[in-house]
Amino acid sequence: MTDEEPAIPERTVADAVIETLLEWGVRRVFICPGSTEAAFLDATLRHPGLEVLLTTHESVAVSMADGHARATGEPAVVYLHTHLGLANGLAHLDAARLARSPVVVLTGLKPRSVQAHDGFTTLPGTGALAAPFVKRHWQSLAAGEVADDLARCLRAAVMEPRGPAWLGIGQDLLEAGCDAPAAGPGRFRVEAGPAPDPLLLDEAARLLAAAGRPVIVAGAEAARHDAGGAVLDLAERLGGTVFHEDRRSFERSVVPTSHPRYAGLYDPEHPVAAGAGAVLLLGCRGFVEFEPFGRPLLPAAAKVVHSHVDPAEIGRTHRVDVAVVGDERRVAVGLLERLPSRAGGDAGGGDCAGPAPVASRADGVATVEEVVDAIAEVADAGTTVIEDATTSETALLTGLPQFSPASMVTTVSGSLGWGMGAALGYQLAAPDRQVVAVVGDGVFQFGPQALWAAARYRIPVLYLVINNRSYAAVAAAMARHRKRAGQDAGDLSEYPGKDISGIDIAAVAAGFGVAARRLTRARDIPAAVRDLRETGGPALIEILTDPDDLGGRPR
Amino acid sequence: MTDEEPAIPERTVADAVIETLLEWGVRRVFICPGSTEAAFLDATLRHPGLEVLLTTHESVAVSMADGHARATGEPAVVYLHTHLGLANGLAHLDAARLARSPVVVLTGLKPRSVQAHDGFTTLPGTGALAAPFVKRHWQSLAAGEVADDLARCLRAAVMEPRGPAWLGIGQDLLEAGCDAPAAGPGRFRVEAGPAPDPLLLDEAARLLAAAGRPVIVAGAEAARHDAGGAVLDLAERLGGTVFHEDRRSFERSVVPTSHPRYAGLYDPEHPVAAGAGAVLLLGCRGFVEFEPFGRPLLPAAAKVVHSHVDPAEIGRTHRVDVAVVGDERRVAVGLLERLPSRAGGDAGGGDCAGPAPVASRADGVATVEEVVDAIAEVADAGTTVIEDATTSETALLTGLPQFSPASMVTTVSGSLGWGMGAALGYQLAAPDRQVVAVVGDGVFQFGPQALWAAARYRIPVLYLVINNRSYAAVAAAMARHRKRAGQDAGDLSEYPGKDISGIDIAAVAAGFGVAARRLTRARDIPAAVRDLRETGGPALIEILTDPDDLGGRPR
Repeated sequence: MTDEEPAIPERTVADAVIETLLEWGVRRVFICPGSTEAAFLDATLRHPGLEVLLTTHESVAVSMADGHARATGEPAVVYLHTHLGLANGLAHLDAARLARSPVVVLTGLKPRSVQAHDGFTTLPGTGALAAPFVKRHWQSLAAGEVADDLARCLRAAVMEPRGPAWLGIGQDLLEAGCDAPAAGPGRFRVEAGPAPDPLLLDEAARLLAAAGRPVIVAGAEAARHDAGGAVLDLAERLGGTVFHEDRRSFERSVVPTSHPRYAGLYDPEHPVAAGAGAVLLLGCRGFVEFEPFGRPLLPAAAKVVHSHVDPAEIGRTHRVDVAVVGDERRVAVGLLERLPSRAGGDAGGGDCAGPAPVASRADGVATVEEVVDAIAEVADAGTTVIEDATTSETALLTGLPQFSPASMVTTVSGSLGWGMGAALGYQLAAPDRQVVAVVGDGVFQFGPQALWAAARYRIPVLYLVINNRSYAAVAAAMARHRKRAGQDAGDLSEYPGKDISGIDIAAVAAGFGVAARRLTRARDIPAAVRDLRETGGPALIEILTDPDDLGGRPR
Repeated sequence: MTDEEPAIPERTVADAVIETLLEWGVRRVFICPGSTEAAFLDATLRHPGLEVLLTTHESVAVSMADGHARATGEPAVVYLHTHLGLANGLAHLDAARLARSPVVVLTGLKPRSVQAHDGFTTLPGTGALAAPFVKRHWQSLAAGEVADDLARCLRAAVMEPRGPAWLGIGQDLLEAGCDAPAAGPGRFRVEAGPAPDPLLLDEAARLLAAAGRPVIVAGAEAARHDAGGAVLDLAERLGGTVFHEDRRSFERSVVPTSHPRYAGLYDPEHPVAAGAGAVLLLGCRGFVEFEPFGRPLLPAAAKVVHSHVDPAEIGRTHRVDVAVVGDERRVAVGLLERLPSRAGGDAGGGDCAGPAPVASRADGVATVEEVVDAIAEVADAGTTVIEDATTSETALLTGLPQFSPASMVTTVSGSLGWGMGAALGYQLAAPDRQVVAVVGDGVFQFGPQALWAAARYRIPVLYLVINNRSYAAVAAAMARHRKRAGQDAGDLSEYPGKDISGIDIAAVAAGFGVAARRLTRARDIPAAVRDLRETGGPALIEILTDPDDLGGRPR
C-alpha cells in the first residue's frame, strides 16, 4: 500500500448494518464497546450520517436508547459488548419492555470459532439472557444474513404490540465482506396495528352509554397512540371522569392534569371511582400489584371495558365485561362515533385549584413536597420531567402539573437508575424541551456514569437529586413487615439496609465534569436552576431531605 | 401490645435462613436490598453473629462476595433484590463462575401471588437468568423447604468442581413462620473431591519421566488446591520448568515468581516451552482464545498431560495424551511418588534477576511500566494485588513480584469493574494483608459505587487507577481490524469509542468519602501510598498515563 493508492475499504457487514440503520431512519447508536465492535466503529467513519454516542456503562446506553425511543416513537439502537455488556443492560431493558419501547439491542460476540471453544467473554446461548425482555432474539449465523436479521429485529420492535428486540453478531461476521443489499424498511416494515372489532365497540358503547357515572382510566399506551384528545372528548360525551393509571402502572400522562374532567391517579376509594357505574380501562395495565392488593380494585357494581393494544394485558388481574384489542386512539374514536351526545355530566372530578400550598417544617429540613413545589415553579409546558425517585414518586406524580404526554415520563420497572440515562436520550431526541431528571440518591448511585455522557456530549439535562440518604423504600417495607407481625415500627435509625449516607453527590457530579450545587433549602432550587441553565450544559442540584420520610403521601 | 408485653417475634423462615448460614460458618452477607428483603434485614437484628454489608449496587455486592470467597475458600453469600438486582449482578457472577468461587446468590422475589399476576418487579422464570452462571438454580416453593433449599445451594457451591449457586425466595415465604430446623452442613456438606485414577497417574508419570525437558503449566485451580509446593517439588524432580497460565487464563499465581524454576507466563514461543518434550497442564484451562489463536499452542513433539478437577476443562482446545481428573495437589503428590529422583535438570527458566529497570519517557508522561515499578516498590509478601486493568494487565502480571498465591488475584471473565468490589471482599476476609486494587479508568467507571462501601465500612483497600483516558482495548482491536483489512492503523485520536477522558477520578473518589490523590509522575506513587495508608481507611491514587499506549508488552 502506498500513499498514492490508499486501500479502499471493502464493504463489510458492518457497512451493511449501518446502511440498514440509516434506511430505517436511525441516526444515533448508543454504544458501550469492546473489541468485538471494532469493525462497526471503524465503519461509522465511512458513514457520517450515523452518530456514535459513547457511554461508559451499558446501563446508560440502554436507558438512553429507551428515553430516545420514548421521545420519538421510532426505533433506538444500542450496541453492547458480549454477554457481559448485555447482562449489564438487562435491568433497563426491562424498563423498555414494560414501556413497549422499540429498543433494538445489538450485541457483539466473539468470532464463531472462539464461541465454540468457550473462549474469552463467551457464553453459550447468550441470546437466552435477552429472551425474557424482548419480542425477538436471534444470533446471526451467516454474513449474508446479518442486515436482514437486523431488519427483522427492527420490524419486530415497531410492530404492535411494540417492544425491544435483540441481535447477536459475531465479530467474524461483522468483519466479513458483504454483497447483500441494505435491508431497508420497504422490504420489512409493516404498519398493521390491530383495528378494534366493530361489534365489540358496539357492545362497549352500549354498556358505557347505559351506565351511570362512567370513569375512564387512561394509561400509557393511550398516550403513545396519541389518544389524549379523544379521551377528553369521550369523557365529555359520557359526562365522565378521567383518571390516570395508579402509581404502579403510570408511565406517562395522557390528559392535562389541569383539565376539569381529570381527577388524579386512579384510586378505587376515590368517591368518583367508587360510585362509577362503568369503568373504561383504556391502554392501561390495570393493575400492577406491589404487594397483594387486599382490596377490590374495581367498584363491585361497575361494568368493565378494557381496551389495550396487547391482548395479554387485558383482564390480567380483574374481571372484564367487554374486551377490545386495538390501538387506543382508534378505540376512543370508535366509541365516540357510537355514543349519543348527552349533556356534560356531573362527574367531573378535576381538582382545578391545584395542590394546597405546602408549609415549611419548623426544623428547616426540606420536605419532598417543598421540592415538588420548587420544581413546579420552574416547569412549564416545555418541560419534560423524567421521574425515577422511588419514595418521592407519589408526591411528584400528584404534585407536578402535567400539560401533555411529554410532561412526565417514568418507568414502572423498578429498575433503579433508569432516569439517569433516559433523560439524556429523551433530551437528545427532543432538543427543544427542557428535560429535568428527578431522581433519588439511591437511584443516582445506580447510574452516576450517565454524567460522563452528559458532560461529553453537553446534553443540557438538569438532574435534581432528592437526597434523603436512605433506602426509604426498604425502610417502609420493614415497617410494613413489622406491622404485619404485630410489632411497632421501632426506631428507624436502627433499620439495617436503610442508611446510605456518606456520598456528596454534587462533588461526584463535579468530578464527572457536570456543574453542580448542594442545597438544603427547597426555596433555593429555582434560583439555582436559573443559574445552572445559563451554563448551557448538563447540571445537577442535590437537595437534602429528611432521611425518615418514607414517602407515599399523595397531594 | 403494651410496653410491658413486647411481641416476641415468631421464628420466621428468615431466622431459619440466618441460622443455616451461621451453621455453615457464614458470618457476612453482602446485600443490595429492596422491599422483598425486609424480613431478612429485620431478622438480622436477632442474630448479631451475621454481619450485613450494605452496598449501593449489585455489581459491588457480587464482586465483594467473590473476593471474599477467593480469600477464604469458603462460601460467600450475596442477597439481591428481584430479577433486576440479579441482572445487575450477572456480569460479576460470571467472574465467580470462571474462578469456581463458591458464591451463593440469594434473590428476594415478590410474594408468590404477585409473581403469578405479573406484578411489580416480577419476571417469570427469573432463575433462568442465573442458570448459565451457576451450578444450581432453584426457586423455593414452600416455607418449610427454604432452609434446606439454601443448604443444597451451599452444598453445590462447595462440592468439586466448585462454583456459584442461586436461590430465589419469595417475600411471603421469607416472612412465614417456620418450625423447620436450620439446615447445617452436617446434613448436607460432603467432602468428596475426585481422587486421581492411580493407573492414569502411573501413565502420566511414565510419560513425564521419559520425556526430555518437561514443562509444567500451573493454573489457578492448582493454587486453589494448595499445590504450589508440590508443583515446585515436581519441577525439581523432573528437572523441569514451571510457567503460569497465560494472560487469558491467569487468575492467580501458583509458585513464587522469583523461584529459579519459574519462567513466566506460558508462551509456546518461549524457547523452553518450544523445546519441551512433555507438557503437564496442571489445573489450568489451557487455553482461552481471545481471537482465533492462529498458531499451535503446544510443541508439536511434546506429550501432553492435562489434569484438572473439572473434566469439562480437559482438552477443550487441544490434544491430550493423558487426562487426569482430580484435585491438583493430589495429582502433583501422586506424580512425585511415582517419579524416580533425578538430578535437577538444566531447564530452569527463571528470570532471577527480575525485570530490567524502566527508562522514563522524555516527555515526562508516566508509563505503565513505571507505574508497575512503583507498585513493586511498595508491595511485599503481605500485599495482595487485585488486578483489573485490561491493557495494563500484561505489564502487571509480568512485572510484579508474586510471593505466594495470595500475591496476585485477577479474573479471566472480562467483566469490567470486578476488581472494584473484589478488593473489598478480599480485604475483609484477609484483614492482615494489604490489598491494592490496580484498575483502569474504564474499569473504575464500571464500579465507582464500590467506593461507597469502602468508605462506609472503612475497608483499607488502596485503589490505584491507571488513567489513560482511553478504551485502549477497543483501540487495539480497531488497529488489529485495520491490519487484517490491509490498512494502516491511522490516527488513534480519530478512533471512535476510544476517548473516555473527562472524569477527574480522584475528585469522584473524594465525593464518595475516599481519600484520593491525582498524580502525573509514577515516582510520586510510593510516597502517596505511604501518606494515604496513614489514614487507616480506603484510599485512591489516580495516575495519568499515555492515552495511546495500547498495552500488551510483557516484561
